Amino acid sequence: MATSGTQRPGGRTERTRLAVLHATLDLLAERGFSELTVDAVAERSGVHKTTVYRRWSSPDGLVAAALRLGTEDDWAAPDTGSVEDDLYEVAAEVVRYFTEPGLKELPTASVLAAFQAPQAAEALYGFYQDRHERMKPIVERAIARGEVPEGTDPVEVVRAVCGPVFYRLFVSREGVTPAGARVTARAVAVAAREGAFRGIPHSED
Amino acid sequence: MATSGTQRPGGRTERTRLAVLHATLDLLAERGFSELTVDAVAERSGVHKTTVYRRWSSPDGLVAAALRLGTEDDWAAPDTGSVEDDLYEVAAEVVRYFTEPGLKELPTASVLAAFQAPQAAEALYGFYQDRHERMKPIVERAIARGEVPEGTDPVEVVRAVCGPVFYRLFVSREGVTPAGARVTARAVAVAAREGAFRGIPHSED
Repeated sequence: MATSGTQRPGGRTERTRLAVLHATLDLLAERGFSELTVDAVAERSGVHKTTVYRRWSSPDGLVAAALRLGTEDDWAAPDTGSVEDDLYEVAAEVVRYFTEPGLKELPTASVLAAFQAPQAAEALYGFYQDRHERMKPIVERAIARGEVPEGTDPVEVVRAVCGPVFYRLFVSREGVTPAGARVTARAVAVAAREGAFRGIPHSED
Repeated sequence: MATSGTQRPGGRTERTRLAVLHATLDLLAERGFSELTVDAVAERSGVHKTTVYRRWSSPDGLVAAALRLGTEDDWAAPDTGSVEDDLYEVAAEVVRYFTEPGLKELPTASVLAAFQAPQAAEALYGFYQDRHERMKPIVERAIARGEVPEGTDPVEVVRAVCGPVFYRLFVSREGVTPAGARVTARAVAVAAREGAFRGIPHSED
């Protein structure tokens, strides 16, 4: 696809964009959404205030664009050869990402920002839609191996494995460990093998 | 158990306590934790400011005490005669409680407050510990009926059925309907029947 010269990866506009969005993510992790200002992002990024305001205009817009950065990485679903182990890897990555000091601040602030700004909620939705898409191969490969039956809904399986981890973190506030992730992955793998995730109407609505 | 005269249910101290805590819940639902002040709670409740400050001293303390009110109700787990239907009732109640306008504001503000104040997080933890305890009969009765095997962990089953609902609401931001609750209840019931929730070490840690 042809793009204009200034938009190409590594070009100046692109470097400015990345500087601003990474500064936004840093400040989101450090201060949270309610303390984030366009001026602070400009200062942190070294990009002139008027440039930042012209393109993003508000903290909401900055955070939304910054969260969408997450869909530009090269993350791929684990491929261990077993559906239970793939699901365990997914759940354990969530545990690590949301509990390890120095790592957990940004994802936690992102989940919180979605309560506080509709644009952030929309961006978080977009991020997880993208992750759901990238995790489909886990179930598709399990079907091909004959581990789970045809028609198993790959996204519902992902929700089933991530849900209890997030429930412990942000609802029941019990905390979570990789052992908890293993319990969940095992239960979801059993349910998937038994065909519990087949024939689901509109699961992606 | 003997209690002092002023502490008895319906006594004056008790009426004051309930007026203050219900005013706290109203304001939490209307404004959220970050806008909640002790003065506003005093005004809304009609209880004198000094009385409120003397007993609760901070918004954190008020919110924590108000969230603990939830453990004083007479909520009991559904008892439909089938583990899948019991789990569906639980999940559908969460869907209703967190999506219906006029109903969703308080529970949503409570989940949000837990991100913002450690005392609120602790109170939310206490609330869900209490709910977990009250939901144990769902699995205990299913074991007695022979629907699920002995040793099935009742709390892990609850996490499995509530988790995906909360994941849709507050993480992937996809929204959720009673149909989504049915999918989850069915999958968890299958996994439970197959023994996927047995032999779980320290599930309540």
